[in-house]
Order: sequence, then C-alpha cells, then structure tokens
Amino acid sequence: MSAILKQRVRFAPYLKKLRTPEQCVPFFKNGQYLGWSGFTGVGSPKAVPTALANYVEKNHLQGKLAFNLFVGASAGPEESRWADLNMLARRAPHQVGKPIRKAINEGRTLFLDKHLSMFPQDLTYGFYTRNKKDNDLLDYMLIEATAITEDGAIVPGPAVGGSPEMLSVADKIIIEVNTSIPSFEGIHDIDMPINPPNRPPISYTRVDQRSGLTSIPIDPEKVVAIVESTIPDKVPAPAKPDAKSKKIAEHLIEFFEQEVKAGRMPENLHPLQSGIGNVGNAIIDGLASSSFKHMNVWTEVMQDSFLQYFEKGKIDFATATSVRLSPEGFKKFFGNWDLFSKKVCLRSQVVSNSPEVIRRLGVIAMNTPVEFDIYGHANSTNVGGSKMLNGLGGSGDFLRNAKYSIMHTPSARPSKTDPTGISCVVPFCSHVDQTEHDVDVYVTEQGLADLRGLAPKERAREIIKQCAHPDYRAQLDDYLDRAIFYCTKRKSLHEPHILSNALKMHINLEKNGTMKLKSWDDQI
Amino acid sequence: MSAILKQRVRFAPYLKKLRTPEQCVPFFKNGQYLGWSGFTGVGSPKAVPTALANYVEKNHLQGKLAFNLFVGASAGPEESRWADLNMLARRAPHQVGKPIRKAINEGRTLFLDKHLSMFPQDLTYGFYTRNKKDNDLLDYMLIEATAITEDGAIVPGPAVGGSPEMLSVADKIIIEVNTSIPSFEGIHDIDMPINPPNRPPISYTRVDQRSGLTSIPIDPEKVVAIVESTIPDKVPAPAKPDAKSKKIAEHLIEFFEQEVKAGRMPENLHPLQSGIGNVGNAIIDGLASSSFKHMNVWTEVMQDSFLQYFEKGKIDFATATSVRLSPEGFKKFFGNWDLFSKKVCLRSQVVSNSPEVIRRLGVIAMNTPVEFDIYGHANSTNVGGSKMLNGLGGSGDFLRNAKYSIMHTPSARPSKTDPTGISCVVPFCSHVDQTEHDVDVYVTEQGLADLRGLAPKERAREIIKQCAHPDYRAQLDDYLDRAIFYCTKRKSLHEPHILSNALKMHINLEKNGTMKLKSWDDQI
Repeated sequence: MSAILKQRVRFAPYLKKLRTPEQCVPFFKNGQYLGWSGFTGVGSPKAVPTALANYVEKNHLQGKLAFNLFVGASAGPEESRWADLNMLARRAPHQVGKPIRKAINEGRTLFLDKHLSMFPQDLTYGFYTRNKKDNDLLDYMLIEATAITEDGAIVPGPAVGGSPEMLSVADKIIIEVNTSIPSFEGIHDIDMPINPPNRPPISYTRVDQRSGLTSIPIDPEKVVAIVESTIPDKVPAPAKPDAKSKKIAEHLIEFFEQEVKAGRMPENLHPLQSGIGNVGNAIIDGLASSSFKHMNVWTEVMQDSFLQYFEKGKIDFATATSVRLSPEGFKKFFGNWDLFSKKVCLRSQVVSNSPEVIRRLGVIAMNTPVEFDIYGHANSTNVGGSKMLNGLGGSGDFLRNAKYSIMHTPSARPSKTDPTGISCVVPFCSHVDQTEHDVDVYVTEQGLADLRGLAPKERAREIIKQCAHPDYRAQLDDYLDRAIFYCTKRKSLHEPHILSNALKMHINLEKNGTMKLKSWDDQI
Repeated sequence: MSAILKQRVRFAPYLKKLRTPEQCVPFFKNGQYLGWSGFTGVGSPKAVPTALANYVEKNHLQGKLAFNLFVGASAGPEESRWADLNMLARRAPHQVGKPIRKAINEGRTLFLDKHLSMFPQDLTYGFYTRNKKDNDLLDYMLIEATAITEDGAIVPGPAVGGSPEMLSVADKIIIEVNTSIPSFEGIHDIDMPINPPNRPPISYTRVDQRSGLTSIPIDPEKVVAIVESTIPDKVPAPAKPDAKSKKIAEHLIEFFEQEVKAGRMPENLHPLQSGIGNVGNAIIDGLASSSFKHMNVWTEVMQDSFLQYFEKGKIDFATATSVRLSPEGFKKFFGNWDLFSKKVCLRSQVVSNSPEVIRRLGVIAMNTPVEFDIYGHANSTNVGGSKMLNGLGGSGDFLRNAKYSIMHTPSARPSKTDPTGISCVVPFCSHVDQTEHDVDVYVTEQGLADLRGLAPKERAREIIKQCAHPDYRAQLDDYLDRAIFYCTKRKSLHEPHILSNALKMHINLEKNGTMKLKSWDDQI
C-alpha cells in the first residue's frame, strides 16, 4: 500500500478491501449493468476496466463477457478498448472515440443517446433497467476518486457527471483512487438526487453559489473493493483555431456587442456555455481578447481555452461538470490551484445541465451541429440520418432553455471528391435533434442569421443569405422558390417543402459524392 | 354605465376612461404590435376586436389595417374574423380556427409558433420586436378582465396565459370588463416576470402552492380605455369519446397500474397533464372511473371532462393557465364555485408550462401528435411537412420535461379515398417537433409502445408491433428490414434509413391519396 494512498483514503475500513485490478475481474459476469464515473474523457475508472479488457483478450471472450454500460458522458480510451473487444452490449447516453462509434454503426453495440440532464434521473427512476431481473438498478458502479473522506464519502477527480445518481442506485461499488494526480478536494459541489414527489428546487441564482457538500456520500457497506490507480487521463491539447472558426467567433462577438448596445443583455453578458471543438475554442479565444469583463461561465465542460480567462482576470466564476484539460492544462491548473479552486466549481450533470437553472440564469448557449436546415432545425447526432457521431450530449438541455440559443459550424465541409461537397445548410435535416423552436441564431464563417421573431419563410431567406456557402446559395434559393410555388397551389405555405426533393442533396452525396445538384428536376 | 360595471371596477379613475368599443377604433394604426389576453379560446378581448373588424369591413380596409398580434395561445372567433379580413400580418405563438389556419397556409399571415413557456419571456426580452422603431415592445395590450381591484390591478377571467408579461411591456392598455360572466376573483395566482440576471426560482413543490397575488398589477397611467363587454366565450361542448379513444385510454391506465405496481410511481400517480381533444377527454374519463384516488393535475388547460373528477372526489387539486369550458361547463363551474375555487388555481403560462416545475413534480404528460416515426420522433404541427395545423403549444414544454412523456393518436386516419389512407406511424416524420430523446411512450388503439431504455432499432420494432395499424405493419417492417440491409453495407446502423424512401409514404399520399405503397421499389 503506497503512502500516498494511505494519505488519500481517510476512512480506514476501505483499506481492508484493497485489491489489485486483476483481483476485481471475478466480480464481473456477462450481461451485468455497470456505471462508470467520468465525463468527456476525464475522471473515468481506468485500472479495473483495463484488467478486464486484458482478461477478455487473453481468454478470447470477445462478445461473451459484455455489459450494459452507463457513463455520465464519454469515458477515456478504456471504453474504446471495450468496444473493440465487443464488451459493450449496450451503451448510454454519450460517447466519443472511433472504436465505440464503429461498434455502434456496425450494429455491435446498442446505443441510446439522451439529454445529459435527464439521463441520471431516468436511471434512478428505473427506466433503463425495466427488464433486469433483480431489484438493483446497477450491479456495479466503478468510480475514480482522488480522495476519500473520514466518513467514506468520495471526492471525485476532474468530473462529477452522473456519479451521485449512479452511486445512489448501485448494488456494489468499486473505487479506484488515482494517486497519479493531486486531490481535487474542495472544487466539487454535490447535489444528491431526490426524486418526485419530494424533489426540491435547484435553488442557485448565481453561478458561484454552492450547496456546500464537497464529496459524494455513499453507504460504505456497498464498497467491495478499493484499487490504487496510477493511470492519468489523456486528453489531446486543443487544436489552434483555424481561419473559419475565427471568422465565426468574430460574427458572434459583434452580435453580443449589438445585443448589449440594444439593452437586451448586461455589459458582462450572461453566463456562457460553449461546446467542445475548434469553433468553441475560437469563441473562447475571441472573448478572452474582447472588451467584455466580469464574465461568468455556466457550462458542461471546461477546456484548456478557458484557463486564459482566469489569468487575464476577465472571468469572475466558472462552473461545469467536468474540467477536460490536456496534461499541460492540468499542470497549469494545479500550478495555480489557489486561484482556480476559488473560481471554479464542479457540479453533477443534472445540475450543470439543468433546464431550471439554465433558463433562470439566461445562459448564452453555443454548440456545433452536423447540419441545419433552411427553416432552423438542426441535426446534432446522425450523419446522413443514420450514422451516429457522438450523441446528443447536453446540446438540447442548453439550446432549449438558454436565453440565446446559438449554433455554429463552417458553412461547408469536404467530401471525398469535392472540397465543398457537403453543405452544412440543407433544405431538410436528415435527422432532427434541435427543432426550429429551439435555436435563435445560426452562424457560419459566411455570416450570422438572427432568427428571433421570424416566421419560417423569413428564416429560410435569412439563413441562405447569411450562412450558406456561396457554392450552395443559388441551389438553396432555387429549392425555396420551387417549394413556395409548389405549396402555393396546395395551400400549405407555412413551411414550404417539396418532400420528393427535400432530402435530394443528401441522396446525391451518398450516390455522387457531393451535395451539388445538376438540377432539382433530375432523377439521381 | 351599468351598475354591475361600477361594482366590478373598484378603482374609480378607470371609470373616467370608459369608452364604447367603437370609440377605441381610432387608437389603432396599420403595423402596430398588439397583445391580447386569452388562452385556448377563452378570456380574450371581444368587444374592441369586433368593433375594429366591423370598421375594416365597412371601410374596405382589408390588408390595409393589419397588425402583429400576440396572444398567449389561441383567442376566440374574433381572431378568426381578423384573419378573414387580412388584419393579421403576423401572429404568434399558437392559433386555433379554420380562418386563421387558412390565412397562414395561404401565405396571408406570417405565423411563428414557439414553446408556450418561452413565448412571453422572449417577448419581454424584445426578441420579437427587434425591428420595431420605438422603444415600446407592444403598442397596445387588450385584456379581458372580470374585475379591477382598488389599486387598479386586473383580475382576469378564465385564462391568465401571457397577460402578466404582455401587460408589463405594453405602452398602452385597453381593458374590457366582461360583465356577462361572474368575477373569477380568487382563483388566479400570479407570478410577475423577473428577467435574468435577477430571476428567482419558481419555488412551487406541490400543485396547490400559491404566490398569493390574485390579480395582475399594472401601471394605471398606461390604461387609455376601459370598455364594458357582454360577449361570453363560446367553446363547443366536448365530443363524446369514440371507441378508439377509449381503447387508447385503457392501454394507458393499464400502463399506469403496472408502473405503480413496479414501484416506479406513487399510488396517486404523479400530477397529470393532458392535451385538448377526443383522446385527452377519453383518458380523463377513464381515469375518473379508475381506481386511482387523490390525483393531482398540473396542466395547461382544464376542459369540461375534468369537472367530474372534483365531483367524484378523486382529485385533490388542479392547476392550469386556462379553464376552457363550454357554456354548460361554466354553468356547473360557477354553480359550485365554493368547491372549484378551493381546488383550482390559474397561473401564468410561464409557470403552468415551466420546465423547472414540470421536471420537479415529475408530471405525466399526454399529448396528440399529427404523426410519429418508427424511431420515436413526433410531428405536432405541420401536416405533410408544410401545412400548419395549430402550432406547437405546450407540447414541447411538457414532453421534454415530464417524468412520463406520452403521445397518443389513432393508428390511422382516413384520406379522401381510403378509410385508412393515412398512417400515423411513418418511417420518417415530415416535420419534427418532439425528438426521439423526448418521448417515452406512444399509444394507439392498437397498443402501447414503451420505449424507455431502448436503442433506435429496438424502438422501431416495438412501435411497429404495438402501434401501427395492421394495414401498415408489413409495409413498415419491410422498410425497416430494407433500411437495415442498406445500412449494414454502409456501416451506419445506429438509426437505419434509406433516405430515398424515407418520405415515400407521404409523397404517395400527396400523389395517390393513400400511404399504402405497391412496393418500396416503385417510383411513385
């Protein structure tokens, strides 16, 4: 037993349950329901999943030792390995990584995506375990901790996610104490689940309020093993924003300035939510060098790009359910722990993504879609209508409830044969995750379409004019003109479509490698 | 001045502003932004809108005196008349009635539908009046009152709706005091809008809690006219539930019994929300004769069918934003005012439809779609993708946030030439308002599909088996089989579709009058 482990685990009875990862393998049986801690690739268990993967590989148990796995959002490379070894029979509610995406799209893993604010609550309702024989909802919860308190409560690492809820409904608990990273004690703020009819309000009215509970209380009797882990999280450093992303950020900052000037938003803006990715990083970069001060953040995930905010003193407080930092980011974070631990708070995903709080605070939500259509619906999940990318994540939680619901993407993307073969603006989304009723503003490097108060036909003209790539503008206008003509005869002019043409750009991409059509009249 | 008017208006200065409806006509100019009280056809202004319509008709001003009109939800026949006279240039966020639907679908009225919980807040944000020249958000608010308090505050009638917010941002106010109906004083509970960054929680944790404010406070200086109205609301008596609706109700009550038995719901259920319509009425009828007791209602609209609940003592408390009763229903309601006024509370639509409260209370939401697809998306608004029915209403507010999100519809409907020419289960919705992430259960007279915890392909089999009309079951299974085959080759098996066939049933209905296909291979 390492000295650091002894120091971190302040509840002695757990130390009697110390096991190696390999000694945990016999706990697991085919078909079990498992919960993992972690969110967006950080804070997940690593040692036990790796031991189990080694066991499956060595004994050729691929597909014979498979699980129903629930993680707050995505875990790290360990779940990718499980996917490759066909150890994921069923997976919810979000995932990242080529191997697991491959398993889903090849039909080897059954995946269901769900609003991240709802997933943990629905799990505690028993909605996902209706067909399970015994009464336990989860057979095992595997959680990574960075410390254990005197009463056996768990201090998580860089993610809270769905751990409070999953721990509350797990039959047995396995704790991995990660001694390769410092303890995160003091940065968390935990709200434990209380279900209807006795659920109280989530009472926060500012981003910096706390409940005061800094660890997750559990029933120590449920703990069957404690394992020391020395495997750090591995998140790649964020890519530098490209020219298109910078252009998108410029459009957005100009929009914010106009809204402040029009008196619709305070000078320090409203609390910001920003999704993961290149554009998200560019926006954060842009805001950091803008004239806005005393900003606040109410988001799901904090990335490396946020750190400069604090250093420049532009941000007063930030809260999320996970800090997804690169190794360099974590070094910076721990190197200035006094500052960051005062200005950052990690909450459960039920709270970080809560419709209640997002609407109350008037959050500014910014996320990237796969594509969006001329009337303002967006596809966040399924490429070409069928192929799962990562899942819904918190996009719906934030976009439905934010004061400013914003989606941003480059206007076009390359296909295999055409540098602008894929238009991100289409007549009709091949899958809808965000409806026309949920998004206020779409932005591409071309421009910004402000849809507030516009009727569908007005939205369509604005989106095509402001957001579409020039290669597609005439084609989309032509669709709209034809649809208006077609629907005039049929007296269905609210949201004009020609259904036989609505998905033609997608079909042409499948068959001919580009969304550029010769004519809307041609049979493809 | 009638004696009853003098009695109802307890703030004397208003009586000096008494006008006839005709005397109000000169207030109105083309292009103004107007708010009306009312929700689901009750509680709207009637006398002034009628005088204005008469004026337009008499002076042939059709299309020359037109307005941007906002109503909490739908108003009564007066707005239908405005639609016929081309007095509605723009209308939001919900409407009911053939003439207004016709104006929208013929392109004479620009309509935007929006979640009813969000519409009033977005209006106060200035989102719908961005292009208005002066600083006022609404030029006039026309509100029907049933009494005026000593400090000039307004006691509404059978609907609160968006009136608190619209009154707060209106430049001038015209009050119609309806003396043909009793005063509703004491039944309302008003929460006045407070916008971010200072918005407090909506703190209700039970359906029967109240803020205590029973009238809407306004600035008396804004009142430019008070008008006596003697025009009652005219809502038709609800139709008797038909056999299919009764069957749907039976499936649902059986489902509730199972959920109680499995321990996932208390014996008195959770607070109920039920949409307007035949199926909604059948469910309420069915619950009234079920074994459930001490039920509660947290809904948007109470209809006649609810009244028997109270009489049978099965319901403890009900809250809504409107009581939409037939003349007979209102007679019953006022005849037993002591009972109903203790057990019913009317709130603003921001509160009745609040995601915060709906999620906290664990509401059971039940609404009717136009159609739903095999993966669980639903179309609530646009027939054939383009033709507006009534608008989104509160469906998204409730279905996204409810503990049990349920949609119900007959499995098939007649087209002009085929008694089952329209399948309510389709491969791909022609418009998406509720996503696959938002609905737990679909019910038709055929059966109930419980989708909780299922992945898309599992959902599809369950929906086709349980919900589809027998005339369409094989055709839908055939689509799914073909889509799985098609997507196996393309490694896109998460939510299998063949985009070139996805809307074929809709296209066939347009061209051949039925959704029944000869073959999925045929060109239509």
